[in-house]
Amino acid sequence: MQLAFVGLGAMGSAIAHNLLASGHALHVFNRHAAKAEPLRAAGATVATSPAEAARAADVVFTMVADDAALKAVTFGEQGIAAGLRPDAVHVCMSTIGVAAARELARQHASAGQHYVSAPVFGRPDAAAARKLHVMAAGADADLQKILPLLREVGQSANAVGPDPWQANLVKLIGNMLLVSMVETLGEACAMAEKTGVSPAKVVELLTGTLFTAPPYQAYGAAIAAKRFQPAGFALPLAQKDIRLMLAAGEEAGVALPIASLVRDRFLAARAAGADANHDLAALALVALSEAGLKDR
Amino acid sequence: MQLAFVGLGAMGSAIAHNLLASGHALHVFNRHAAKAEPLRAAGATVATSPAEAARAADVVFTMVADDAALKAVTFGEQGIAAGLRPDAVHVCMSTIGVAAARELARQHASAGQHYVSAPVFGRPDAAAARKLHVMAAGADADLQKILPLLREVGQSANAVGPDPWQANLVKLIGNMLLVSMVETLGEACAMAEKTGVSPAKVVELLTGTLFTAPPYQAYGAAIAAKRFQPAGFALPLAQKDIRLMLAAGEEAGVALPIASLVRDRFLAARAAGADANHDLAALALVALSEAGLKDR
Amino acid sequence: MQLAFVGLGAMGSAIAHNLLASGHALHVFNRHAAKAEPLRAAGATVATSPAEAARAADVVFTMVADDAALKAVTFGEQGIAAGLRPDAVHVCMSTIGVAAARELARQHASAGQHYVSAPVFGRPDAAAARKLHVMAAGADADLQKILPLLREVGQSANAVGPDPWQANLVKLIGNMLLVSMVETLGEACAMAEKTGVSPAKVVELLTGTLFTAPPYQAYGAAIAAKRFQPAGFALPLAQKDIRLMLAAGEEAGVALPIASLVRDRFLAARAAGADANHDLAALALVALSEAGLKDR
Amino acid sequence: MQLAFVGLGAMGSAIAHNLLASGHALHVFNRHAAKAEPLRAAGATVATSPAEAARAADVVFTMVADDAALKAVTFGEQGIAAGLRPDAVHVCMSTIGVAAARELARQHASAGQHYVSAPVFGRPDAAAARKLHVMAAGADADLQKILPLLREVGQSANAVGPDPWQANLVKLIGNMLLVSMVETLGEACAMAEKTGVSPAKVVELLTGTLFTAPPYQAYGAAIAAKRFQPAGFALPLAQKDIRLMLAAGEEAGVALPIASLVRDRFLAARAAGADANHDLAALALVALSEAGLKDR
Repeated sequence: MQLAFVGLGAMGSAIAHNLLASGHALHVFNRHAAKAEPLRAAGATVATSPAEAARAADVVFTMVADDAALKAVTFGEQGIAAGLRPDAVHVCMSTIGVAAARELARQHASAGQHYVSAPVFGRPDAAAARKLHVMAAGADADLQKILPLLREVGQSANAVGPDPWQANLVKLIGNMLLVSMVETLGEACAMAEKTGVSPAKVVELLTGTLFTAPPYQAYGAAIAAKRFQPAGFALPLAQKDIRLMLAAGEEAGVALPIASLVRDRFLAARAAGADANHDLAALALVALSEAGLKDR
Repeated sequence: MQLAFVGLGAMGSAIAHNLLASGHALHVFNRHAAKAEPLRAAGATVATSPAEAARAADVVFTMVADDAALKAVTFGEQGIAAGLRPDAVHVCMSTIGVAAARELARQHASAGQHYVSAPVFGRPDAAAARKLHVMAAGADADLQKILPLLREVGQSANAVGPDPWQANLVKLIGNMLLVSMVETLGEACAMAEKTGVSPAKVVELLTGTLFTAPPYQAYGAAIAAKRFQPAGFALPLAQKDIRLMLAAGEEAGVALPIASLVRDRFLAARAAGADANHDLAALALVALSEAGLKDR
Repeated sequence: MQLAFVGLGAMGSAIAHNLLASGHALHVFNRHAAKAEPLRAAGATVATSPAEAARAADVVFTMVADDAALKAVTFGEQGIAAGLRPDAVHVCMSTIGVAAARELARQHASAGQHYVSAPVFGRPDAAAARKLHVMAAGADADLQKILPLLREVGQSANAVGPDPWQANLVKLIGNMLLVSMVETLGEACAMAEKTGVSPAKVVELLTGTLFTAPPYQAYGAAIAAKRFQPAGFALPLAQKDIRLMLAAGEEAGVALPIASLVRDRFLAARAAGADANHDLAALALVALSEAGLKDR
Repeated sequence: MQLAFVGLGAMGSAIAHNLLASGHALHVFNRHAAKAEPLRAAGATVATSPAEAARAADVVFTMVADDAALKAVTFGEQGIAAGLRPDAVHVCMSTIGVAAARELARQHASAGQHYVSAPVFGRPDAAAARKLHVMAAGADADLQKILPLLREVGQSANAVGPDPWQANLVKLIGNMLLVSMVETLGEACAMAEKTGVSPAKVVELLTGTLFTAPPYQAYGAAIAAKRFQPAGFALPLAQKDIRLMLAAGEEAGVALPIASLVRDRFLAARAAGADANHDLAALALVALSEAGLKDR
């Protein structure tokens, strides 16, 4: 199959390499052209615009930073929409807002084009190892076409429902669960440390028995060790997702006190110096600081 | 070994039966004597007071409802302390507060007696199936003596540290993680339902991939199905544990915003009718109600 | 002086009538023309577009519902900017966001036009009685020109600073103080009622002694009496202001836990049925409901 | 009238001096005897125990630090209850918990003694200036007897109701309103400072117009100036009152999200170094710190 991939950051590159390695013909585009070179070396064709990449493809994947970037590569001049073939599908893997996904689907539909939202769970290392979990939503025929492709790049790819935004909602809900867990682990470790119990021991005891989900173990260990860099899931990206979740809640009329609480913790973490080089685990800086504990 | 067991509610009875089935001689006591009869039928000796049960035993287990009940059976007239042999160990399996555990240890120590805190994770059905996770803390020699016994009644029994209250802290932290998870799942399901996405589907997708810890699956499924009864982990008991955690945080000088948030959600759930017949999952009633959703 | 007034809702009409009664020539415009008729009857000239109203005026006031409406009447086709004379000043009295105010000032400046933000505190009845408090920010020369006019329609008009958005920030901060007070009064009245003490008595005792600011008295009495209609300050408008405050905090990197908390309470109040016919006092519905109290 | 006064800290001494100056015979007692000397010099009789002070009096006032101190001076050995005459009234002016007040009333009643709760609003300087606001609750006959006395030491003294704890509830509610205001002012000033607007100017504009209650002005000015010492209303005492309010809410089954939020802010302020030498205004340290602002 002819594929296109637009947006070659850490996540996008990893997925694109895997698609190429699986034997697909791949046309790639990235705003900063240099990032496309390793893929060219591996056999991909480098396009000069999203439209050009799209023209050649049965399926066009996008993995860009945010709503604004997605709109630019899709509906900007020489964007994907300008090149997308009537039978092709645009698959957006970025974590975007529910309203943005709805708008994207609407615009593609009004142009007679196919659109699927397929956000992923997993850090770049998981992407490289084909360990992503993908949530896909869109028209059934489109899902039948792309789910096999998504299963090549992830350990699971599931159909969420017929409306693309539904996959984005599930992704945002998942990240709300994740951030809630991280905040709670931060408070737990602050409590342990201040009372003189080893946070690492507490985390080990709890994640070794009851709280066995991988993110408990990964974030618990990182927070207990105060290992806030390098960024696996960069803190500002997680902050963005909570912002999108709150916006979705606002639109739907659903109060989300947990998301509101962590929204403020993110702001405090940022003000304390946590930036794009810091992992989501650095959210714990706030709990530690409020307990009067040094962060190192 | 000669064992005693004081407090034969759902949890205590299940553990006591397992100890008996493992071949230990068992002396039991319960305030309401009727609850001791099934154990008598199974071969246990029924004592007329905690002191009498203790007098016969190398290890005395207690599993009672709260701090007040524990004080009564331990230091009340004809309490455990009045019968405990100098070489015996009192093992408290109840979820009690950090301050109460410290006070209990202090009083036993001043009487030259041995005390270990060994709270457990798991519902009565897990206790019956020897699937509990036990956290034990106390003097090393005491732990060496009782950990093998605890492993007979649980799937794991871990040493936390030399001070009994440390095990209670780990238990409270664990329950804070649990309640935080349940609250977040409640908000997630409210969001899904109000936007027209199946909460059961969202829970299945998330707990089948990333959030695989058993409590995510159990509470997620219950909340999605609005199955709030019968009580596995009764809501008022979970509420009590958050109260104890907040008290521990207050004593230690650690702010616990997540615990504070759920504290209020428990009060709102209680005011909405959730009582001892409701499971912790019923905490989600508040998120559903705030979203304007009917609870059934 | 020749004045123009665009936006003739309850607030705008009241202010416009007062300007007219003070002897100024007044050109008015409202999207729904019928609302301009009482002013025409009182002597105002009704324009067919914001541009036409602006062309005639030394000062153009706007009082519209939100950021979107303001952009439309200002920079839309036949908007104010298309008619504003180089020496005239656009005075925006609406409660708009900090970013929107900054953008509005930027656009007017790039067109060589004068812009002042002058949001007001007070309900329509206060506007009618010339009891508003006005906060104005902008270039000093512009403020010198308009402050006397603003003092004609309010009991106070103060200069905040040289940048228009500063007045909007002060307005948003004021409304955050107000909403925080209302939420706290709601919790206070829930507590009083549930313990069997008269909320009206508690409010009377506290606002008669220590908490003597007029909003304490007005909102306290309304909440104690569960008098949530008619809308003085309509609940959805107050909700909008908290949303704008949170956006300003997000942009500035300032955590605002109080604003976050009430954000969720607004959503819950809306889901419980509070709409544009309800006063901000109806925020107390949430505290009452969470305490298990009927709202009537 | 013969009066007794037990508890001669800053508040108690100021009130006692005023009672003496009003011409009453006064018997005083303080645990640390030195604090009684200025009153002896002014004409008071210094007793050697609360019981001795009580024996001489028609009305016995107490103003001590907390629930524990109150129990000690009242029901301890040689406590007030041991000396209180059958027709005399014990008037407790301390801010104590609702449950403690109920228990105190119960014990006095069971001894056939009269008890009134009469907590006060105001700092020591207000006490000295007879500017306190007093809330009194108890049997009507007792209130008739003591309200005139209370009016001698305050600018207002109001009857709350027939049950003493009701006055304590009103006091706690009042302090919840106060602390909520202070927290919100802290966030407001953080927002102003970080965006480059003068917090002092913002406070002046808002408290000069709409938020005119004296505490807005006093705390607003202190926070804007980052003047956190000396302690007028010491931060740990305000923290204690929020703790008592939360306990009352817990007992009554009323969620109090505002109180829960500030509970955590107090803990964070304490961990950041705010102690008994700091004023309640120092709560703003947390909002400033979370915004990345230096506190000086």
